[in-house]
Amino acid sequence: MRIEVLSTGTELLRGRSVDTNLGAIARELEAVGGEVRYHATCGDDLARLVEELKLAASRADVCIMTGGLGPTEDDLTRAAVEEALHRPLRFRPALWRAIRSRFRRLGVRVAAINRRQAFLPGGAGALANANGSAPGFRLEADGLLLFALPGPPREALPMFRRFVVPELARRLRKDWDLWEGKAIGLPEADVDALVRRIVGKRATYGLTVSGGVVSISVRTGGPSRRKILRDLSMRVRRALGRRFIDAPIEEVVARLLAKRCLTIAVAESCTGGLIAHRLTNVPGISASLLETAVTYSNGSKVRRLSVPEEVLRKRGAVSPEVAAAMAEGMARSSGADVGLATTGIAGPAGGTREKPVGLVYTAVAFRGKTAVTERRFGGGRPDVKDRAATHALNLARIVLQEG
Amino acid sequence: MRIEVLSTGTELLRGRSVDTNLGAIARELEAVGGEVRYHATCGDDLARLVEELKLAASRADVCIMTGGLGPTEDDLTRAAVEEALHRPLRFRPALWRAIRSRFRRLGVRVAAINRRQAFLPGGAGALANANGSAPGFRLEADGLLLFALPGPPREALPMFRRFVVPELARRLRKDWDLWEGKAIGLPEADVDALVRRIVGKRATYGLTVSGGVVSISVRTGGPSRRKILRDLSMRVRRALGRRFIDAPIEEVVARLLAKRCLTIAVAESCTGGLIAHRLTNVPGISASLLETAVTYSNGSKVRRLSVPEEVLRKRGAVSPEVAAAMAEGMARSSGADVGLATTGIAGPAGGTREKPVGLVYTAVAFRGKTAVTERRFGGGRPDVKDRAATHALNLARIVLQEG
Repeated sequence: MRIEVLSTGTELLRGRSVDTNLGAIARELEAVGGEVRYHATCGDDLARLVEELKLAASRADVCIMTGGLGPTEDDLTRAAVEEALHRPLRFRPALWRAIRSRFRRLGVRVAAINRRQAFLPGGAGALANANGSAPGFRLEADGLLLFALPGPPREALPMFRRFVVPELARRLRKDWDLWEGKAIGLPEADVDALVRRIVGKRATYGLTVSGGVVSISVRTGGPSRRKILRDLSMRVRRALGRRFIDAPIEEVVARLLAKRCLTIAVAESCTGGLIAHRLTNVPGISASLLETAVTYSNGSKVRRLSVPEEVLRKRGAVSPEVAAAMAEGMARSSGADVGLATTGIAGPAGGTREKPVGLVYTAVAFRGKTAVTERRFGGGRPDVKDRAATHALNLARIVLQEG
Repeated sequence: MRIEVLSTGTELLRGRSVDTNLGAIARELEAVGGEVRYHATCGDDLARLVEELKLAASRADVCIMTGGLGPTEDDLTRAAVEEALHRPLRFRPALWRAIRSRFRRLGVRVAAINRRQAFLPGGAGALANANGSAPGFRLEADGLLLFALPGPPREALPMFRRFVVPELARRLRKDWDLWEGKAIGLPEADVDALVRRIVGKRATYGLTVSGGVVSISVRTGGPSRRKILRDLSMRVRRALGRRFIDAPIEEVVARLLAKRCLTIAVAESCTGGLIAHRLTNVPGISASLLETAVTYSNGSKVRRLSVPEEVLRKRGAVSPEVAAAMAEGMARSSGADVGLATTGIAGPAGGTREKPVGLVYTAVAFRGKTAVTERRFGGGRPDVKDRAATHALNLARIVLQEG
């Protein structure tokens, strides 16, 4: 089944907004055995939309469109489908009643332009939108099965799950399986060599790198595919050893803490709250995470974390001694079992010859011992924050697994 | 000039990675008067790549490709260009010397497979990659000007700026201008009505919404375009009043603090470090941001922020009284001029009938007064964190502008 995703919206082509629908749609399709074969992004331009829809009809079996269903003049999906697939728009009284009653429920006056949203191409079925005012639609025409969904992910994705996935799952018959894992703290080329040697010709694999973590996916078909994947994954895990993780690093740390009933507190300097933000993205972390602090100023390092003033003066805020004192001070003052701390220079300013931008010290205090690392991360301020946060969470994991 | 961006990489079509190159390329092209007309994403599949390249050659003048230049077997850009544009690959001894010398400099052994990267289509010129081992190339063939860049943004974007932008800027002649601003705390439909009324037929405009902020862009051409935009933008700003901001909210807050030599400290509960993360993304914030804390547990609220235990017991952690006490306690204990605090229920668990998921109290303590708001945010855990952080930063802005 050749599936095309057509993302619409001039804001995507102008870099004002990033398309996250494609990735979410692709991942959920994969779970039921589908894959996105074609993807195009198209601005809010009628001629271009018609051109892309005709292209989709000529090369794909299914097209999932996102965007262009709002009430304003630059919402052109309905008109483009009308023209490309030769299905004149028709007013749907029941749909108009549903739109009006939604507005009434929310206590908002319905605008005259919203009436546009009650027109659908002939033969199309409306798809209800539980999280917004723009209804979607489903249409079979010119050999193409088309689903038109709104642009905002929180409207599009629930509709995709409710209306698109079940129908495509019925039509697809999944005949392959997938195993996924992650390697942390190892260059991509080394992971590639290791996975290639193990996988051989028994399966295909792919690697992607993000923020210092290499994601591995191994895929194979055939009747014994589950057995093959079990065997290959076991060997990859064994070869990677403690560099293997099976989930995002913050989830691994959260799971380790919960399993062992340990609490953690985090003192951040150069990572500026990113470790806290990542950990608090994990539901249920509140049972393990007592508190975190961003101690940007020297004063706050002394007052909150009892970092000795003399150490700050002699070694500077970016030093292994201060990282260790921050981790220990945070654990002590919060009463947490584990203290995690970072101090470094995120840039763009603040670097010196001895202490260049990207230099980061990380410390984990646990059971009376403190582990400290020194790393130099490349890239701009966001890269340094991202890599330093990943490294710090990984150091916490290693200490927890060993301690 | 019809510009196409062709993003390659199976990881993009499988939702393992999000394409951020498109947006960055689009924004920088716009600054020199170019716009992306076509965009497609293509997996690492030779036949598909050839098909997309032929399509690009048939509809575009310029194609900017990203990805597929690595040394491994799924890096197919060179082979696809060879086939689609009929330019056989040729070994380039000078390029191979450059690749080897780069590896030598890094003290890494060059692998035999890296030799593949020294083959380029006939007539192509190599583009040096300062941040990675994969060279790009530039080729004019079949009426198409093609730039092939690596996939990772930190390699692709510097090369795009160095090699692509200057050439395209020379060829383009910009004949329009753009004004951009943001509205915060107002529904999109209201912003739309307001901007539409002001802009009329004198320009075109677009709106995009993200995390409670509506971004507005107004564009027009003609000889008096600067004057028109000055007039329209002044009127939009005036109509929006204090709901207008000219930059991301964290930058606006950072600027206000710096201008008035004020310091801030942040106590977060439900936003879990996201306010700190956003503020610390602004270079130079260390002069204004004394410290932040994520006080997840009641104990840490009492100990760090001196929230009275009785208030916590009687009103619960998610209450206007606790938000106010957190903001005041944070300002007092850190010595900051401004104290900002959030407490709420990010979900998915923890909601009750009286205090549902998404309920968030925000407080700003400044000059002896504390402002508190109650809001109910929709969406999942990441949405609630995101919107609550935006709202909190905006409340700080309003208090600072008024106080």
